[in-house]
Amino acid sequence: MTSEPIRLGVVGLGRAFMLMLPTFRADQRIELVAAAAPREASRQAFENEFGGRAYETIEELCADPVVEAIYVATPHQMHRDHVIAAARAGKHVLVDKPLAISLEDGAAMVKACRDAGVHLIVGPSHSFDGPVVQAKRLIDEGAIGGVRMINAWNFTDFLYRPRRPEELDTSQGGGVVFSQGVHQIDIVRLLAGGRGRSVTAMTGKWDARRPTEGAYSALMTFEGGAFAAFTYSGYAHFDSDEWMDWTGELGHRKDPAQYGGARRALAKVASAQEEAALKTARTFGTGSEPPVADHHEHFGPIIICGDRGDLRLTPQGVHVYGDEERTFHSAAPVAVPRAEVADALFDAVRGDRPPAQTGAWGLASLEVCHAILQSAETGLPVDLRHQVSVTGEEGRDDRP
Amino acid sequence: MTSEPIRLGVVGLGRAFMLMLPTFRADQRIELVAAAAPREASRQAFENEFGGRAYETIEELCADPVVEAIYVATPHQMHRDHVIAAARAGKHVLVDKPLAISLEDGAAMVKACRDAGVHLIVGPSHSFDGPVVQAKRLIDEGAIGGVRMINAWNFTDFLYRPRRPEELDTSQGGGVVFSQGVHQIDIVRLLAGGRGRSVTAMTGKWDARRPTEGAYSALMTFEGGAFAAFTYSGYAHFDSDEWMDWTGELGHRKDPAQYGGARRALAKVASAQEEAALKTARTFGTGSEPPVADHHEHFGPIIICGDRGDLRLTPQGVHVYGDEERTFHSAAPVAVPRAEVADALFDAVRGDRPPAQTGAWGLASLEVCHAILQSAETGLPVDLRHQVSVTGEEGRDDRP
Repeated sequence: MTSEPIRLGVVGLGRAFMLMLPTFRADQRIELVAAAAPREASRQAFENEFGGRAYETIEELCADPVVEAIYVATPHQMHRDHVIAAARAGKHVLVDKPLAISLEDGAAMVKACRDAGVHLIVGPSHSFDGPVVQAKRLIDEGAIGGVRMINAWNFTDFLYRPRRPEELDTSQGGGVVFSQGVHQIDIVRLLAGGRGRSVTAMTGKWDARRPTEGAYSALMTFEGGAFAAFTYSGYAHFDSDEWMDWTGELGHRKDPAQYGGARRALAKVASAQEEAALKTARTFGTGSEPPVADHHEHFGPIIICGDRGDLRLTPQGVHVYGDEERTFHSAAPVAVPRAEVADALFDAVRGDRPPAQTGAWGLASLEVCHAILQSAETGLPVDLRHQVSVTGEEGRDDRP
Repeated sequence: MTSEPIRLGVVGLGRAFMLMLPTFRADQRIELVAAAAPREASRQAFENEFGGRAYETIEELCADPVVEAIYVATPHQMHRDHVIAAARAGKHVLVDKPLAISLEDGAAMVKACRDAGVHLIVGPSHSFDGPVVQAKRLIDEGAIGGVRMINAWNFTDFLYRPRRPEELDTSQGGGVVFSQGVHQIDIVRLLAGGRGRSVTAMTGKWDARRPTEGAYSALMTFEGGAFAAFTYSGYAHFDSDEWMDWTGELGHRKDPAQYGGARRALAKVASAQEEAALKTARTFGTGSEPPVADHHEHFGPIIICGDRGDLRLTPQGVHVYGDEERTFHSAAPVAVPRAEVADALFDAVRGDRPPAQTGAWGLASLEVCHAILQSAETGLPVDLRHQVSVTGEEGRDDRP
């Protein structure tokens, strides 16, 4: 494996790209060489900062021979076209979560990348967070015996952050199940081995002005007998970062006195257009900057119960509660935020060693999102058919 | 209503009675006038402290004309006989949770009390805790609009406290579902209106030396559309009292440095007999005393999501997270521990105003315990048929 940096192109210079900026700026293993974005201001800012080429279209980006991998950071509904275009051009792909909105699209993307012989990685997601990776290692080393039960919760203001209209429409991939649930699902699957069996869930749509799922609770079973219960609420009331020492999702310090900020900001917005404009104001080239991470990113309190102990994740590391004593395993300090995502891309492209979060993995997590929505409709458990293990092994039925 | 104290008899002077001692000692509305217990030392201690009569058998206690109500504080499997005996003698009944082990027994007890025209109250349970009562009042006052989702968790060392053999045998009412689950179920039902529709759950039996359920996760739906997710683990690893400011279940201060104490104490025990003896050493008349409560009792973190806000319960009161601001509603200081249980008994017997936690209520909660066990076996949701509302209204089908 050469240590030459990955020559990365990026499509989409919006919020997702913004949150990867600290990584791209600091990680020497990635060189941003090109971008594609519809906004002139974003393209200009990209060329100014990174010196590469910024195109108007994905086609031009895909045709750039310097680019060897493409980060697809466009809205969910564009993932399919952009990933398939990148794969057909022979580029490796890092695609933002969720893989796609429909399972059909997801399966087509997985197939396109397989056919083209390129790696497809679904990320970043919080399953790449340092303490999650650390917990996985502790589990693999036998720190708590077999994993039996996982509980995860996250109470945020997600639904009241500035949104584009489609982000509030479930049929277009909006709502917390697709955008947020997939983080919890990725984490829980990673820690429980990957292959879910069934999901029972309830969802909540409690604000008619934002008519998509803002909350859910799910109970999921896994091959081998483990189970997981996970809850999310994005209704901007209780904030579970209180149980993470007031460290926010991005590893940044949070001021509890700012309670209600998301709803207050939104109350000043008069229309869906104004709201979308407010979201655009947080994209690249506007002078907006992501918060500074003091600690690792996190996705709310997570407790893993095993035969001989529990693990609890924090933004600083992992608590191990054994039969006789409890110990705290500090995570390595955050030198480069989201370095784990850069690790994954580098190892896949240079070393041909893909991470757990492949396209097939992302399809399995997307299946769980749909199962949550379906179970909430029917009141019945939904059997899972597209599951893969952490090592990439396929489940009972991998056919779409 | 006269304000004359309730002349209470108690059957069983074990652990349950011990935990009610501070109430009986301090609450002027209850006068302990008699007891029944098999152990001579317990009877002697009772007569020494309370000056009443202590009998060897329930029959003698029931025949005592001074007694107007009986607190049944015997092990689960004796509840049926003791409650029916009390009812037939015309005594009102306070019976420790769970009402019974089987639904048939529970229904027979409810019927016996109805036929005798006596009140049947199932308590104490943590649904009587001050902050739970306070949260119910806030909900009734419209503080958060309609209740939509409840999450409750409790991670304790329950399974490793000293146990009699039947407490480790599910078929005899052992395990966390009957003993501990019923607390969570009572709380969740009280806050969601009472009438559950269905339950899906998974349970864990992870220690072959203590072969009963030590953990579960359940997802429950309610009439009106609310749902609840609740998890319990009694495996003595992570302790969720850390999220309750290190206040223990009984409202007492807890020292986190005592980690692993339950398992350590149990490791010194050589046999089931020795373990049962260790439990007996914590009963009345042995000099053992319950811990002193600084705060209200609690049953782990509980978050209630409503249309316009969330509530979070602590041993000191209730956080209200509204759309615009968060406020903390302090609970009244604990003058008499478990005064809410004395309230319920007094109001029922003197004022003919029963609490929510009647026999029919207790039967409905017991039904949920069985539903958890059944769903964990089958992997399917279990429809509920014996549910009653907080106001005592019966559900779709009240017939056993």
